Amino acid sequence: MNVEIISIGNEILGGNIVDTNANYIIKKLKGINLNVQHVSAVADEESEIVAQLKEACQRSQIIITTGGLGPTEDDITFQSVAKTFQLNLVKYPEAERHMIERISKIGVSVSPSNLKQSFLPEGSICIINPYGTAPAMILEKEGKVIVSLPGVPLEMKNLLSEQIIPFLEKNFPNLEHIQSRIIRTSGLGESNLNDMIKDFIISNQKLNIGIYASPEDIKIQLNALAKTAEETKNILDEATRQLKVILGDYIFGYDNESLEEVTGNLLRRKKLSLAVAESCTGGMLGETLTIVPGSSDYFKGGIISYDGEIKEKLLGVPHTLLTRFGEVSEPVAKAMAEGVRKNCNSDVGLSITGIAGPTGGSQEKPVGLVYIGLADAGQTLVQKHYFHNGRQAIRLRSVRRALNMLRLHIIKG
Amino acid sequence: MNVEIISIGNEILGGNIVDTNANYIIKKLKGINLNVQHVSAVADEESEIVAQLKEACQRSQIIITTGGLGPTEDDITFQSVAKTFQLNLVKYPEAERHMIERISKIGVSVSPSNLKQSFLPEGSICIINPYGTAPAMILEKEGKVIVSLPGVPLEMKNLLSEQIIPFLEKNFPNLEHIQSRIIRTSGLGESNLNDMIKDFIISNQKLNIGIYASPEDIKIQLNALAKTAEETKNILDEATRQLKVILGDYIFGYDNESLEEVTGNLLRRKKLSLAVAESCTGGMLGETLTIVPGSSDYFKGGIISYDGEIKEKLLGVPHTLLTRFGEVSEPVAKAMAEGVRKNCNSDVGLSITGIAGPTGGSQEKPVGLVYIGLADAGQTLVQKHYFHNGRQAIRLRSVRRALNMLRLHIIKG
Repeated sequence: MNVEIISIGNEILGGNIVDTNANYIIKKLKGINLNVQHVSAVADEESEIVAQLKEACQRSQIIITTGGLGPTEDDITFQSVAKTFQLNLVKYPEAERHMIERISKIGVSVSPSNLKQSFLPEGSICIINPYGTAPAMILEKEGKVIVSLPGVPLEMKNLLSEQIIPFLEKNFPNLEHIQSRIIRTSGLGESNLNDMIKDFIISNQKLNIGIYASPEDIKIQLNALAKTAEETKNILDEATRQLKVILGDYIFGYDNESLEEVTGNLLRRKKLSLAVAESCTGGMLGETLTIVPGSSDYFKGGIISYDGEIKEKLLGVPHTLLTRFGEVSEPVAKAMAEGVRKNCNSDVGLSITGIAGPTGGSQEKPVGLVYIGLADAGQTLVQKHYFHNGRQAIRLRSVRRALNMLRLHIIKG
Repeated sequence: MNVEIISIGNEILGGNIVDTNANYIIKKLKGINLNVQHVSAVADEESEIVAQLKEACQRSQIIITTGGLGPTEDDITFQSVAKTFQLNLVKYPEAERHMIERISKIGVSVSPSNLKQSFLPEGSICIINPYGTAPAMILEKEGKVIVSLPGVPLEMKNLLSEQIIPFLEKNFPNLEHIQSRIIRTSGLGESNLNDMIKDFIISNQKLNIGIYASPEDIKIQLNALAKTAEETKNILDEATRQLKVILGDYIFGYDNESLEEVTGNLLRRKKLSLAVAESCTGGMLGETLTIVPGSSDYFKGGIISYDGEIKEKLLGVPHTLLTRFGEVSEPVAKAMAEGVRKNCNSDVGLSITGIAGPTGGSQEKPVGLVYIGLADAGQTLVQKHYFHNGRQAIRLRSVRRALNMLRLHIIKG
C-alpha cells in the first residue's frame, strides 16, 4: 500500500514556511502501519497540482494533500482535484451551514470568498471542520483514495486524528501491529543520555529506538512491531521497565505527557499551591504552567519582577540585597521565592532570575547565568545554571529546569 | 528557469526528521532570482530516485538533490544519478585524497565503504567538501544541471553558499531583479483582509501577492520582479503606499518586525512604562513583551492573578466587583489594569481576563470570552472579545489583541 503526501502552497515553495505537516502525517500514519513513499510540494498553480496528482495516482493508492482550502483566490485544491478526475464542483449545504454559523458567531459577515469553500468535487465525502471554516474532503475514485486537509497545522492535525485515521483504519485493515511509546526525560544532556542507554539499545534489537532532543526535553521513542497488539505491548512494557532502572527520576513522563502537566499533577496530588516570581523569563514560567487545563487547582499566580523596583515593592526583596549582590544572585533568587510564597499566600514559591542577553552580561556574570529558587514551609533551595544558545533558548531552559527542580523536590519531599 | 529539489533519505519518509534543507535552499536561491517550482522527498531506493530524477528532468533545468552521499549501503545518490543518465561511476583521485587525509586525521582507518564515496558519475564536477568526507557533485547533462549535496544541514549549507551559488550565478546570469516585502497586519481576519485588498490585487498584476495567516498576525507578501533593482523598489514602494491607504493602522510593521517589537518601540519613543495584569494568559503577555531584547527600557513587570485572591490582594480589585460581576467581566478588567498600573508604578497598565477553557464556560460567559483593559493617566478602556479554537489559541489571540490595542492607543493618543 503506497501512500503519498502533496503539500500545496506558495508559502512552502516561496520559502516562507518549513513544511512540518508532511512529517506529522508520516508519523501518524506509521502508527497504523501505513508507510509514506513519496512527499512533494507544489505551488498554488492548477496545472502543477493536477500534474502532481496524476503522477501520484500512478504509484500510490492513498494520496493526502494539505493546503489550498482557504477562502482566497489562490486556494484551488478542490478545483484541482475535480479537474484531475474530470468532476464538477458541487455545493455541499452542510459545509455552507457550518461556515455561516461559525462566521456569524464571531460577528463578521460571510463573504463570497468564504462561500467558495463549500464547493467540493462531486461524489466526495465532506468532512466538517470544527476548527476552522474550510471543510476537508475524502474522495474515492479509480481505486484511489484522495484526502484533502487544510494547511493550518492545528486544523490539519485534529482532522487527521479524529476523522482521517479512523476512516483509513476502517477501510484498510492491517495485519501487523505497530506501537510506539515515548519516554520523556528532563535534566540530562543528549550525549549523557546516549551514553547511559547505549547498552540498552544494543541489547534491544527487536525495537526501533530513536532519541530526539528538543529545547523542552529529550525523548526516547520506542517502536515495536509484532503479530499481535498484545505482543507489541509486552515488548514495550519490558523495554520501559529496563529504562526505568537505568534512568530513574530523569524520566518524568510518557507519550504526550508534558513536564508542566506531570509537575502540576504532583502539586494537585500533594494539595500544594504554587506561585512564581519571574525576572528574565518575563512570565514564561506562569504561561507554561497554565497551558495545562485545570491548572487553577494548584497555580495561584505570581509576580513578573522584570524591574528591580518591583522586586522590592511586590516581592519584599531587601534593597540591600539588590545593591550588594545584584539582581541576578543567589540571595535575590532566594528572597524572590520566599517573597512570592508569602505575598501570594501559596505553599511553594518558585523564582527565576538571570541574564538572558544579548547584552547585560559581564566577566563575572555572563549572559546565560540563571538562578532558580524554590521555597516551601521548611526550606529554600537555590540552583545556579549556565545556559546557552541565545536569549530565547536561555529563557526556555530556565523554565524547564525550574519545573524539573520543583518536580524532583515534590517527589523526594 | 525551473528549479527543483529532491530530498533523498529514509529519515524524512520515516518521519524521523523534518526536511528543513529544502526550505533553506529555496530561500538561498530566491536571492539569486531562481525560483523552486517543485520539492519532493524520496526513499533510499534506486528505482525511486531514478524515477524522480527523470520526472524532474521533464520540467526543470536545475535539479538539486540532498542526502544519500554517505558511506553506508543505503547511500546511493551518485549511483542513481549515473543510472539516470546512463553514465559510469569513476574514481575521482582528489576526492579519495581528501577523504583519506580527513579520516586519518581523526585516527580512524579508511574503510571500503568510505572509498565508495570517491566514485562519481563520469563527467561530473567533483566539489571537495571541507566540512565532511563526502564530496558533492555538479553534473551538466542533456541541457540540465544536476547538483548533489550532502544531507547533513551544516555541510549542505556551507557547500551551497560557498560553491553552488557562485557556480549558478556564473552560469545563469539573470537580467532581472527580484525583491520581496512583507506587510504585517493585526486586527483583521483573513477573509476580511482579502475582501479589502481584492481590487488592489487585481490592479497590481505586476506583483506576485500572497496572503499568509498565522496565529500571530496576517501578512501580505509582495514579490516584485523588474529589470533593475531601482525599478523593483519603486514597484514595492508604490504598492506599499496603496496598501497603507486601504489598510491604514491595521498595518503594524514590515518584513521581520513583530507586534511586540513595534509596540515596544512606540512605548520607548513616548517614554512610557508598562505593567501587565494577566489572568487566563498566565504570563504569556509578559513573556511575549520580553522576547524583545532591551524590553527592560519600558517593561516593568506585572502580576499574574490567576487566582481571585491575588486579584484582590495584589491588584486591589474590590471584593464586591468580583462577587457581583465575576472574575471575567468588564469592571474587573478595568480594575486590574488600573491596579497593576498603580502597584507597579507604571504609565500604562494592560490587563487580560478571560475564559480559556476547555471548562469554566457558561451560556452567558462562554469559553473564549476575553476582556482586555488598558489604563493610563487619562482613562481606562476595555475591549470585549470572543476567541475560538481551544485553550492555547484563545490565549495567543488574547495576547495579540492586547498588544494591538496598546499599539493603536499610543498611535492615536
